[in-house]
Amino acid sequence: MSENARINPCDIIRKKRFGGELSEKEIHAFVQGVVDGSFADYQISALLMAICIQGMTDRETLALTLEMARSGDMLDLSGIPGVKADKHSTGGVGDTTSLILVPLVACCGVKMAKMSGRGLGFTGGTLDKLESIPGMRVDLSIEAFEAQVNRIGCAIIGQTAELAPADKVLYALRDVTATVDCLPLVVSSILSKKMAAGCDVVVLDVKTGSGAIMDTPEKSRLLAETMVRIGNLSGKRFSALITDMDQPLGNYIGNALEVEEAIDVLAGRTRGALRDVSLQLGAHILRNAGVVESVEAGVCLLEEKIDSGEGLRRFAQMIEAQGGDPLVTQDTSRLPKAKAKIELKAGSNGYLAAIRTADVGNAAKLLGAGRERKTDEIDPSVGIVMHKRVGDQVSRGDVLATLHVGERSDKIGAYNLLQSALLLSDTPVKAPALVHAVVE
Amino acid sequence: MSENARINPCDIIRKKRFGGELSEKEIHAFVQGVVDGSFADYQISALLMAICIQGMTDRETLALTLEMARSGDMLDLSGIPGVKADKHSTGGVGDTTSLILVPLVACCGVKMAKMSGRGLGFTGGTLDKLESIPGMRVDLSIEAFEAQVNRIGCAIIGQTAELAPADKVLYALRDVTATVDCLPLVVSSILSKKMAAGCDVVVLDVKTGSGAIMDTPEKSRLLAETMVRIGNLSGKRFSALITDMDQPLGNYIGNALEVEEAIDVLAGRTRGALRDVSLQLGAHILRNAGVVESVEAGVCLLEEKIDSGEGLRRFAQMIEAQGGDPLVTQDTSRLPKAKAKIELKAGSNGYLAAIRTADVGNAAKLLGAGRERKTDEIDPSVGIVMHKRVGDQVSRGDVLATLHVGERSDKIGAYNLLQSALLLSDTPVKAPALVHAVVE
Repeated sequence: MSENARINPCDIIRKKRFGGELSEKEIHAFVQGVVDGSFADYQISALLMAICIQGMTDRETLALTLEMARSGDMLDLSGIPGVKADKHSTGGVGDTTSLILVPLVACCGVKMAKMSGRGLGFTGGTLDKLESIPGMRVDLSIEAFEAQVNRIGCAIIGQTAELAPADKVLYALRDVTATVDCLPLVVSSILSKKMAAGCDVVVLDVKTGSGAIMDTPEKSRLLAETMVRIGNLSGKRFSALITDMDQPLGNYIGNALEVEEAIDVLAGRTRGALRDVSLQLGAHILRNAGVVESVEAGVCLLEEKIDSGEGLRRFAQMIEAQGGDPLVTQDTSRLPKAKAKIELKAGSNGYLAAIRTADVGNAAKLLGAGRERKTDEIDPSVGIVMHKRVGDQVSRGDVLATLHVGERSDKIGAYNLLQSALLLSDTPVKAPALVHAVVE
Repeated sequence: MSENARINPCDIIRKKRFGGELSEKEIHAFVQGVVDGSFADYQISALLMAICIQGMTDRETLALTLEMARSGDMLDLSGIPGVKADKHSTGGVGDTTSLILVPLVACCGVKMAKMSGRGLGFTGGTLDKLESIPGMRVDLSIEAFEAQVNRIGCAIIGQTAELAPADKVLYALRDVTATVDCLPLVVSSILSKKMAAGCDVVVLDVKTGSGAIMDTPEKSRLLAETMVRIGNLSGKRFSALITDMDQPLGNYIGNALEVEEAIDVLAGRTRGALRDVSLQLGAHILRNAGVVESVEAGVCLLEEKIDSGEGLRRFAQMIEAQGGDPLVTQDTSRLPKAKAKIELKAGSNGYLAAIRTADVGNAAKLLGAGRERKTDEIDPSVGIVMHKRVGDQVSRGDVLATLHVGERSDKIGAYNLLQSALLLSDTPVKAPALVHAVVE
């Protein structure tokens, strides 16, 4: 602290204001100041704005990431033998890949030790989805978490440890000062938590399209490239896939609904985009962990784990280990079910030309599947099931989607929003590509 | 207010972050938000930083200036007949021009209605200097102020009215976020108070050199040009002089000491830089007010007011009107005098090559002539009298300066600082120019 006291916040702010490169010492003083309060809110936000406009070099972004990681607990997973892997998605609609790839990858011998945030969004986060399984707990201690990963190869829990607390302060300020969408700040925010979580291999799923934070392929590519570059500089093995979010990834959007679809994929009953992206992400983990030589070989290995039923059994084991009802994997009717369903039908013949994906997510939120504020309660049973994908031909009267509604659902609002989000055209439309690019 | 509520702070911040031009409505919402607290500190500082880096157009700077002026009281001096003039200096060492030009200009029929800030600095501000005159008051009501200007043509008082309160908030934040030296922010800060003070003609004295805020002629010129351009856009008549601050302007530095030198100039006893700059500034006011056709004619007219003794008598009238002892103008020994003096002598033969002017000011502050914090008390009697100017030949043992010290003075600190601020050379040195440029 006495060393930091010699670095004045104004000197750091001034340097970045004029486009200078901050030293590791200066970035250390900044992050320390964020945590101990010696950097005032208004000084932090002035520096964040200067960073937004003047940018950061890779050296600065790496230093910021590592300092943010060190601002809280640094998990030591060395007690778990073998390669430990983690996965992060920038977030989208109907994105349940974690529930699928975590047990599948674990079946192949790579340890999946995953800590998830709860966050705000269209539907709940991975934790909320898991909690829709009766009895399932995500608040394990670090000791229980490690023991479970050692025993069955995988666990998904909430952030019991205080990972990168500096990020909480910075994110809250960015949210109210128009500095959210700034590359070095986005990168350090995401990566700092991955660095602190202690895994060796990380695969990033960067979404692009109308339901993603990064709405253009260029922005998504830049984000993916920067994260992989900074991540690899830290000594860990990072890869990123840029995947499509111009329509929901899975067809089920909601909490219990998404668990159901994940089970269907693991059981081999459901094919399509959700399965394909899950296998691609998982195969990159296997390749980066040295289990297979190529991504193609990784996909084959993961497919075997579906066909043999091993993946679904591993998911059941994980559920049981965390206090949940493993029988949901055999019988999805044991999951919470909505009180009623409303069908949304096509008003004309044509082709499903485009889906305003963010609006589909917002419609699910209106039904009660997601949170507006941290204190909002989620209804695990509600959501939307899509019956058509972009490029599909539709006839007047076809059911495009089914709304699963609850007592607290804003049915009319959700119905209207969903209806306006589905755009039909008279001429055939090509389905969008699923994986836009791979960055490694 | 309801109209502002529709403009989100983040939208304004985002626009400037990406280099956009803020509309008058957005700038209005910002300044209102600063005053009513709906813009949080961290949002203000984010926007200030964006302004620093992305700049502002003249239209934006004018709008910001006018909105800041309107954020508090707007003085209406229409009850005072004739042209009302004001003068502003960016601040320097030994800068007592106001005390000289205010009574002189008033003798020529232009009303000098001057409100001064107290401020922090090397020595006290104009108000502190005036208060070193026994009995002198600067806390007149607006009514008394107007009545005095009507009766004797001049008054110098403190900011009784709340002029541009938004500037107080912005300045306090700029001071701790490395955003002080930003052209549109400096310009709007200075001009907003001049706009609110209600005068028709304003002359600006922009200092340049080692004792000035703007340390290079280029920066000073840019500041002067921008202030005059924005000032004239508002419909008032502005001029600016860029004057030298590579050495103290007057030879007397302190509060009572500077009053003494001003009296010496008004009495015609003292010539040199202080007198010359005071006459130039005053002559620009007379020319802009239409009293004379040229600056040269203005200087002649003001010189007559010195030679006739009229200027000194007017100063005595002003002192008496504000409760002070007018006899100080006849006998400067009635001013507070320091307990002791210490001489600083030349250690070698040579020429006075340069003066680190800010250090001379800081030495005066160590003696007790200025404030570090708002609550510090000033000793009116202490200060420094310089006996040599840049370019003067000096012989070993010559007295370069005399320190006027009081009981609370840091004598050794001030002596050492002053000694190190005076640089001798073996070869002759040219005296610096006094007026670097005129901007109108």
